[in-house]
Amino acid sequence: MTVKRTGKQTLLFPNAPSVIGFGNAVGKKEGEGPLKATFDYIDKDDTFGQSSWEKAETQMQKQALESALSGANITVNDLDLLFAGDLLNQCIGTAYHARSQAVSFFGLYGACSTMAESLALAAMSVDGGYAKHAVAMTSSHFCSAERQYRTPLEYGGQRTPTAQWTVTGSGAVVLADSGPGPYVTCATIGQIQDKGIKDANNMGAAMAPAAYETLKAHFSDTGKKPSDYDLIVTGDLGQLGRDIVVDFFRKDGVVLEDNYNDCGLLMFDLKKQDVHCGGSGCGCSAAVLAGHLLSGMRKGLWKNLLFCGTGALHSPTAIQQGESIPGICHAVALSTQKPQKSQE
Amino acid sequence: MTVKRTGKQTLLFPNAPSVIGFGNAVGKKEGEGPLKATFDYIDKDDTFGQSSWEKAETQMQKQALESALSGANITVNDLDLLFAGDLLNQCIGTAYHARSQAVSFFGLYGACSTMAESLALAAMSVDGGYAKHAVAMTSSHFCSAERQYRTPLEYGGQRTPTAQWTVTGSGAVVLADSGPGPYVTCATIGQIQDKGIKDANNMGAAMAPAAYETLKAHFSDTGKKPSDYDLIVTGDLGQLGRDIVVDFFRKDGVVLEDNYNDCGLLMFDLKKQDVHCGGSGCGCSAAVLAGHLLSGMRKGLWKNLLFCGTGALHSPTAIQQGESIPGICHAVALSTQKPQKSQE
Repeated sequence: MTVKRTGKQTLLFPNAPSVIGFGNAVGKKEGEGPLKATFDYIDKDDTFGQSSWEKAETQMQKQALESALSGANITVNDLDLLFAGDLLNQCIGTAYHARSQAVSFFGLYGACSTMAESLALAAMSVDGGYAKHAVAMTSSHFCSAERQYRTPLEYGGQRTPTAQWTVTGSGAVVLADSGPGPYVTCATIGQIQDKGIKDANNMGAAMAPAAYETLKAHFSDTGKKPSDYDLIVTGDLGQLGRDIVVDFFRKDGVVLEDNYNDCGLLMFDLKKQDVHCGGSGCGCSAAVLAGHLLSGMRKGLWKNLLFCGTGALHSPTAIQQGESIPGICHAVALSTQKPQKSQE
Repeated sequence: MTVKRTGKQTLLFPNAPSVIGFGNAVGKKEGEGPLKATFDYIDKDDTFGQSSWEKAETQMQKQALESALSGANITVNDLDLLFAGDLLNQCIGTAYHARSQAVSFFGLYGACSTMAESLALAAMSVDGGYAKHAVAMTSSHFCSAERQYRTPLEYGGQRTPTAQWTVTGSGAVVLADSGPGPYVTCATIGQIQDKGIKDANNMGAAMAPAAYETLKAHFSDTGKKPSDYDLIVTGDLGQLGRDIVVDFFRKDGVVLEDNYNDCGLLMFDLKKQDVHCGGSGCGCSAAVLAGHLLSGMRKGLWKNLLFCGTGALHSPTAIQQGESIPGICHAVALSTQKPQKSQE
């Protein structure tokens, strides 16, 4: 049996599953941001024509998947596996979407790390021969998240300076056993980190240690260094979390900032769009990956990219019980070049 | 690349990952039921020494994993991957448990199908060479589930005749690339089925169509028939859901009841323990599998067993919005005989 792992946390994909399609759908505010040209669908009022925010999120997933399948030039009948989840209690945004698709479904909960988690698992399933076509996807909706995690929108609560803005967005990526790329070459699967942050309005700080530890594990497991990537992107730490990660590496004598960015910073214009520390939510890194990043790779902007999804695995109940916020980060490596296969 | 799937929904595991350890922990009521001799730990008051029901659930997971690792004669440091989830909002029972373990973690949400979902993914990771040791686990707690899904315990609400009793229990299974068995040979991954049931107190009926469809897909994909298994076990449809599945197959001219049972019926004495239609919750099928079923296989009671985890993917919010209940079922095949490998 071929061993397909290296170091303690990294899974190797020697068959390098190819991205064959990707698509996204976002809300109005996201569509007014700097990435507007990279979105397949921008809704005019965030309802997506539905009667509740939760149903809007389900509908948004449908649009993102439709767009990804269209780009891949396949139909849902060609799919072997769907890996997906979201932020809602019992992941109903995803469940009610998956209900409308006749596809074998693995439900995930990784909070805002879900895009990376689903991509890693989809890559494993395709690399291993368990699926010919697999989809990784997720979503978040500002309005369904606000009322579940914080306060009803009608309450008009003030936001603290460290708060991030949950993105209304969904992204879907279709992987296949062959195709034009980019190719998924490996994934470093995170361990939970918790440094005791209890402020649910400061999730950047809560998740930054997880991003740092997973990146460190990735470099250690693979022997790579930051400069081996044209772009390292976390999602979504926002301004504060991003600065903490850069600081942590600086203390190790490693310069990360030269080719490092965060999906929460890419999604919005922080000065003009009043989003405080930047974007967050599963849909943020998903819509940025399944648009700006993958299309940029196809255009030749970046050859090697490390996509690091970060998630805060708390709940309102846990916070009310005085718990701190566990963070997790999974890093997935993408390359425009199909790696040469070693002799098996 | 070796293709490791057959039919539309079935993943093949030609390297047949071996169960090398399993363990469980349950509450007081479960410990008074017919399976009491198969539990590694029975708590005296369901608090597991903790100050909240959610923390009790986390503690219960710790005990189940400890017991499984001890049976496998490895430590958490030997683990490559942990696949786990639970019923709580944002899966906090699992997240706060995984926080205490230094292991790469994939969070799942499959409601009461989580034991089968995690087992299928863990088997894929080991079969494919991505992990040497992987754990599949889940939990549920009667008290944390009641207050989240239904009413606070203090309210003392009446239960309807079709209701099931959420099991306080956790189960963990350790898989490895070699070992004494039982061996995981394949898994049929479910598609969501929803026949319009809106009564959250009748989840057996909501999930039965998913169990039926996945079993049908399994038989069709693999060419097997019910009599090829010594035991087919769903978890957890309860009495009503079990009867519906048997009925569905009878209409197809297939006799399922000869070697078919349900974890929700195995867990409790329905007449004496006042649990109406039987047990439910992620922890029910998990504690039955990681105890009664796997130890029974090792004792020679059953050579070939099909473990079919069933989940209801609704939420209180979805039900309040008038939605029906999406059901899912994943079937995982276990055998005491390591299958002979085909020539690759």
